[in-house]
Amino acid sequence: MFDLIAFDADDTLWHNESLYTATQQKLEQLLAPYLDGVDVAARLYATETRNIPYFGYGIKSFTLSMIETAIALTDGRVASADIQQIIAFAKAMIDTPTQLLEGVKEVVAQVAASHTLMLITKGDLLDQQRKLERSGLADYFAHIEIVAEKTEETYRALLAHYKVDAARFLMVGNSLKSDVLPVVAIGGQAVHVPYHTTWQHERVDPAVAQQSHYFEVAHISELPALVATLQNPKSKIGRPYELVTLV
Amino acid sequence: MFDLIAFDADDTLWHNESLYTATQQKLEQLLAPYLDGVDVAARLYATETRNIPYFGYGIKSFTLSMIETAIALTDGRVASADIQQIIAFAKAMIDTPTQLLEGVKEVVAQVAASHTLMLITKGDLLDQQRKLERSGLADYFAHIEIVAEKTEETYRALLAHYKVDAARFLMVGNSLKSDVLPVVAIGGQAVHVPYHTTWQHERVDPAVAQQSHYFEVAHISELPALVATLQNPKSKIGRPYELVTLV
Repeated sequence: MFDLIAFDADDTLWHNESLYTATQQKLEQLLAPYLDGVDVAARLYATETRNIPYFGYGIKSFTLSMIETAIALTDGRVASADIQQIIAFAKAMIDTPTQLLEGVKEVVAQVAASHTLMLITKGDLLDQQRKLERSGLADYFAHIEIVAEKTEETYRALLAHYKVDAARFLMVGNSLKSDVLPVVAIGGQAVHVPYHTTWQHERVDPAVAQQSHYFEVAHISELPALVATLQNPKSKIGRPYELVTLV
Repeated sequence: MFDLIAFDADDTLWHNESLYTATQQKLEQLLAPYLDGVDVAARLYATETRNIPYFGYGIKSFTLSMIETAIALTDGRVASADIQQIIAFAKAMIDTPTQLLEGVKEVVAQVAASHTLMLITKGDLLDQQRKLERSGLADYFAHIEIVAEKTEETYRALLAHYKVDAARFLMVGNSLKSDVLPVVAIGGQAVHVPYHTTWQHERVDPAVAQQSHYFEVAHISELPALVATLQNPKSKIGRPYELVTLV
């Protein structure tokens, strides 16, 4: 049934958002001596959002936004040693080992045995390549695509490039905004595997999500059964997923 | 004769290094009040080199290295307003229009009429996509590949992915280190089109370069004639290129 099954990477195959959250907490501690009851997280998010068109996603972009936020929130009083410390936070993020989510290795191996797999991730090229190399999963993916944004246009262009019919394409990921809704919009199928936390930028209005047909599993370990069921509906041996659909 | 002709982008199709050089001069002016006769360029280059394994290539990486250099060279005395200014330099670089090298548009259109073209560029994904979009050249390239490094392994993997025999592959670029030597090493052909300035990191020992067989043209406008000659050696109507080879 599927000519191509694609996986998102960050927070679908390996932990990512939790590393950003932990680093944000380090920034809050660093700036605490300068500030009094300021919402660092909100200001950082505003800076990140403003900077995405310039700097895109990934650790370097996040770091430049942390530096800008530190300067702005302290009215320029932040010591340059603390700015150097923020750059050290970035290098520590980069040095953090890739930590696979539970069950990922087995699921990817199992699905790869019967399907051509692609990795589609957005963000920084070097960040993502490094994580993939360290993950031990690279050999399971026939194609690796690192893209600047995951829009309908991105998916349309990828499917055209690989000559895959949207109806025979399945995307698996944790972000409704990036992995599910644009794929469904162009006629593909998608499986939502929620991660315990979602970056504010990736959140979507539940009402919007409910206007789409996609599958939702509680854990990635349920993916092989879902794929098997979709390929052979008669042999349905349970229903480990939920079909989210407009009532 | 060629199944695939690939072009480097920065300093082959459009100006790039000159923008970095101009920004480095802005950094030197910014730091001048703090310093006395310090070689900012040399210290910046040392920082960039140390940071490449962490941050890779591109404007964000360059910016983080400028910030680190400013802090280190001033022993932490640099004002945070000046660090904010360095981030403003980065945004100005990003906002700079893509300026094609002379003759590029015509040459790319001409070669694209008879060959499948690929763009292979290293650096930051977003930087490169933005420059390509603004260049007006995107439609001439069947394939766009933005890679973290241009090594023999990179080229070998790309040719395997696109099922192209190395002997039927021609790479065109300004960097001996990234565009010419690794391609020749894996059995491909390469054309060197020197740019008026080469980033120190991309320079190679002339003795090493001379152990390879590649073509060199003084200007990209000579490329179509070179390709035509290589395809049909008998109809050679001049020799607009130099074959660089070990004596």
